[in-house]
Amino acid sequence: MSTFREIRLKARPVGMPGDEHFEVCTVDVPDPGPGEVLVRNHYMSVDPYMRGRMYDRKSYVPPFQVGAVLDGGAVGEVIASNSQELPVGSFVQSGFGWREAFIAKPAQLQPVDPGLAPLSAYLGVLGMPGMTAYVGLFRAASLKDGETVFVSGAAGAVGSLAGQIARIKGCRVLGSAGSDDKVAHLVDDLGFDFAFNYRNGDLLGQLRKGAPDGLDVYFDNVGADHLEAALSHMRQFGRIALCGAIAVYNDTQPRPGPSNLAMAIGLGLRLQGFVVSHYNDSRADFIRDVSGWIRAGKVKYDETILDGIEQAPAAFAGLFTGRNVGKMLVRLK
Amino acid sequence: MSTFREIRLKARPVGMPGDEHFEVCTVDVPDPGPGEVLVRNHYMSVDPYMRGRMYDRKSYVPPFQVGAVLDGGAVGEVIASNSQELPVGSFVQSGFGWREAFIAKPAQLQPVDPGLAPLSAYLGVLGMPGMTAYVGLFRAASLKDGETVFVSGAAGAVGSLAGQIARIKGCRVLGSAGSDDKVAHLVDDLGFDFAFNYRNGDLLGQLRKGAPDGLDVYFDNVGADHLEAALSHMRQFGRIALCGAIAVYNDTQPRPGPSNLAMAIGLGLRLQGFVVSHYNDSRADFIRDVSGWIRAGKVKYDETILDGIEQAPAAFAGLFTGRNVGKMLVRLK
Repeated sequence: MSTFREIRLKARPVGMPGDEHFEVCTVDVPDPGPGEVLVRNHYMSVDPYMRGRMYDRKSYVPPFQVGAVLDGGAVGEVIASNSQELPVGSFVQSGFGWREAFIAKPAQLQPVDPGLAPLSAYLGVLGMPGMTAYVGLFRAASLKDGETVFVSGAAGAVGSLAGQIARIKGCRVLGSAGSDDKVAHLVDDLGFDFAFNYRNGDLLGQLRKGAPDGLDVYFDNVGADHLEAALSHMRQFGRIALCGAIAVYNDTQPRPGPSNLAMAIGLGLRLQGFVVSHYNDSRADFIRDVSGWIRAGKVKYDETILDGIEQAPAAFAGLFTGRNVGKMLVRLK
Repeated sequence: MSTFREIRLKARPVGMPGDEHFEVCTVDVPDPGPGEVLVRNHYMSVDPYMRGRMYDRKSYVPPFQVGAVLDGGAVGEVIASNSQELPVGSFVQSGFGWREAFIAKPAQLQPVDPGLAPLSAYLGVLGMPGMTAYVGLFRAASLKDGETVFVSGAAGAVGSLAGQIARIKGCRVLGSAGSDDKVAHLVDDLGFDFAFNYRNGDLLGQLRKGAPDGLDVYFDNVGADHLEAALSHMRQFGRIALCGAIAVYNDTQPRPGPSNLAMAIGLGLRLQGFVVSHYNDSRADFIRDVSGWIRAGKVKYDETILDGIEQAPAAFAGLFTGRNVGKMLVRLK
């Protein structure tokens, strides 16, 4: 038996999440039973979708429970094993989330190869956020080579990969982000054709500047004013992938939707909502393509890493204030 | 040369259109020139989309011009001809709209067979509104047999056919309309499984009552509160055909959109805007299927007919107050 820390939901946030909504607890983790392994997490992930799970409502994933440990993606190492399948030293991805260590059966874990990519990549560019970018473009938005694409939240884990994939496909790519440093990074380092700081306002003016002939695809991570501006600048038969709406996740009141949705009628626009699990049948294509692009140097990925599980609440809150460039992670070891 | 009447746009309506925005003019129509015919219209169509053309703005069809005759669908008879292709007595469909008679070349006209269906049907169930219902269901909404479908504005030309087609495909069909008489008509005469009067409010409650397990398809003719209620009651992977938004066509200020659009993300909903011309390649299928269903007695259609071209402005305004059951037409002869 060993002692480790985990993070529990102390209270459901109303508005922005803060330290007061989380509790760091020290718990005894038993030795693994027959067929079980003990996993020591190296990294855990915080992701915007987790905000939705903090509301007590029906959704595509069940809500977090007050007093219970928060679930979420993590990668770690088997440090004690009663399983031949996963000997000590194996590396695994899991969904047990916000804890330093845990007991599980091999069937609940996904082995990963740290020789193929750094361990942390399995939570980002080669994990859920990366696959979200991939299926959002190719499945939800039916991206075609050479189109004009706008990605909001483009400096985040999903947006930064979506933009780079669209560039690989010969598209003209616009991105929005929340600081001038991020904007410069998108253009100078990630190859975006045009980027702008949404905090300066006039989103539609920026889109007109970056794409005078309009947009074929909008990859929406933000919702709200971003969605309204993009709707006003779509070309005929354009597609909008509704991936996230981080602008509204902390709203305490319903916010009116885009007043110009009826533009979709005359232009024949398609708005396709999705979460990554709707397109699980694209997993093999995703892994093959994105790992290939990483090896070929065509895709870069950023990580913002905070150290220590006690930093997880701050890392999570930082998603909504723009503290991260690329994937936001917490290093646990 | 003969004298006929036509209707011109006198002023662009702000809010609801009224008589003051139209002008009935008497004009001399010359005899047909070489290769031309003179067409005497029997029926002209007023359709909700025409409201959009009264704004001076870029859209999928050019705006009407103040002082010019209004365009639109009509059916009539050739009463003088210099064309062997269309002798006197031929019947034709045209887009020259709000006039009793006009000169045209055969290439601008579409011959119709009054033996196959009453002349007026070519402006409704076998015309643009009918095809809108057909492609909206099968193309925009990808209707599958046996699904649960909600049609708003279900007593109108488009909605009443959309509902009946869905019934033919074994679907459970809900409809909304603006009077108790229309609601009874939908259920008693057109075979809807459930219908409600939207003027009584609580749209979501009505949808829950009529479709306890949720909606697979929403055929949206209304927008606004109807769209918001439907979004809150869609099943996973549901499709919404954005066909019209008659609730907002006369708005003088942009109206906020649905506050619950982000529900599309987790549920994987698709919202597909369309106008009938986007799916012109479905024309042959539409004519074959719908004319067959009419002959087989599987599809009924209603017409609300006003007499005399001077009634056209009132007929048009009546679309927005719910004066029509089925297709709103003006009889010109």
